[in-house]
Amino acid sequence: MFSPLINELIQALRCLPGIGLKTAQRMAFQILERQRPQGLALAKSLQSAIENVGHCKACRTFCESELCTLCSNPARHSHQLCIVESPTDVIAIEQTATFRGYYFVLMGRLSPIDGIGPQQIGIHQLNERLDNGQFTEVIIATNPTVEGEATAHYLANIIREKSISCTRLAHGIPMGGELEYLDGSTLSRAFTARTALT
Amino acid sequence: MFSPLINELIQALRCLPGIGLKTAQRMAFQILERQRPQGLALAKSLQSAIENVGHCKACRTFCESELCTLCSNPARHSHQLCIVESPTDVIAIEQTATFRGYYFVLMGRLSPIDGIGPQQIGIHQLNERLDNGQFTEVIIATNPTVEGEATAHYLANIIREKSISCTRLAHGIPMGGELEYLDGSTLSRAFTARTALT
Repeated sequence: MFSPLINELIQALRCLPGIGLKTAQRMAFQILERQRPQGLALAKSLQSAIENVGHCKACRTFCESELCTLCSNPARHSHQLCIVESPTDVIAIEQTATFRGYYFVLMGRLSPIDGIGPQQIGIHQLNERLDNGQFTEVIIATNPTVEGEATAHYLANIIREKSISCTRLAHGIPMGGELEYLDGSTLSRAFTARTALT
Repeated sequence: MFSPLINELIQALRCLPGIGLKTAQRMAFQILERQRPQGLALAKSLQSAIENVGHCKACRTFCESELCTLCSNPARHSHQLCIVESPTDVIAIEQTATFRGYYFVLMGRLSPIDGIGPQQIGIHQLNERLDNGQFTEVIIATNPTVEGEATAHYLANIIREKSISCTRLAHGIPMGGELEYLDGSTLSRAFTARTALT
């Protein structure tokens, strides 16, 4: 319906997650009407990020240098390793300022149905990292979904074989949550894992 | 928090309408993880659209050629002109297949508070187009908002001076709508503009 270049732009915008036809149209027109400089900047940084961003050699997160800022920081506690699914999980944990060790980013979770096996989550790299003897505790912080739990079990088996202490983030009632509105599986988990009041 | 190129990409994505920080992060990571070719295609078509798309000389809609496909189609009814606010309005009307004349796209609406006056909605170009004597009816299809109505009144005064018949799209109850859930102003408008059953 629109001119070829605009149609092409609308189709290209639909590759973004959660963007359907109508939103893509609105985006295309807003850029063409009012935000051409910002649009050009977006095109430039898309291209530059796609061409230059790779994975950190140590933790597998996205970064354009060989080691990411966290992995190249010698001030972190070198005996703890936290395994997460995605780079955004690293940010979420960093914002709590409760963990000062190093990270390992799986960039996914085990999901045979999607063709994601141990290879894809970087098990080889993780093994190498664990084998250098630096870590005394590995904290598994995969999401509490079916795939996340399966991945946690798989990783725990590997880590235990190396005689490294292996822990998992606690599950239970979220702070500020109300029992009344909580789902059953979380509540029963909170019961099973109840702690003594001292 | 992320590496510089990723931060830059996240900030650049936020220029898109309706995209906040979290969504921009998710988009950036999805592109880097799974859609690098599509991301490059998006960068390319953004740049090419921004650099090449201008306005149709006749109707002011976006297009990369001098005249858009609608304006360069000689098979359309040359005596009717429909004035709309945006290129998407043209598409919406075209999809109904009820109008076969030409369009004029204001690319906005009169809104003195935003600095949008007659100049910005292309009144000069509209005048020129009306003065060539081709049109016997002008249909004003601006949105029924405060600014849209003000624009319609302003345009109607100009068009009447040229002794061209000037009409406005009907307002009333939308098809399939229920009286019970209709807002008061639409309902009272529907009463005022009631038509005789024949």
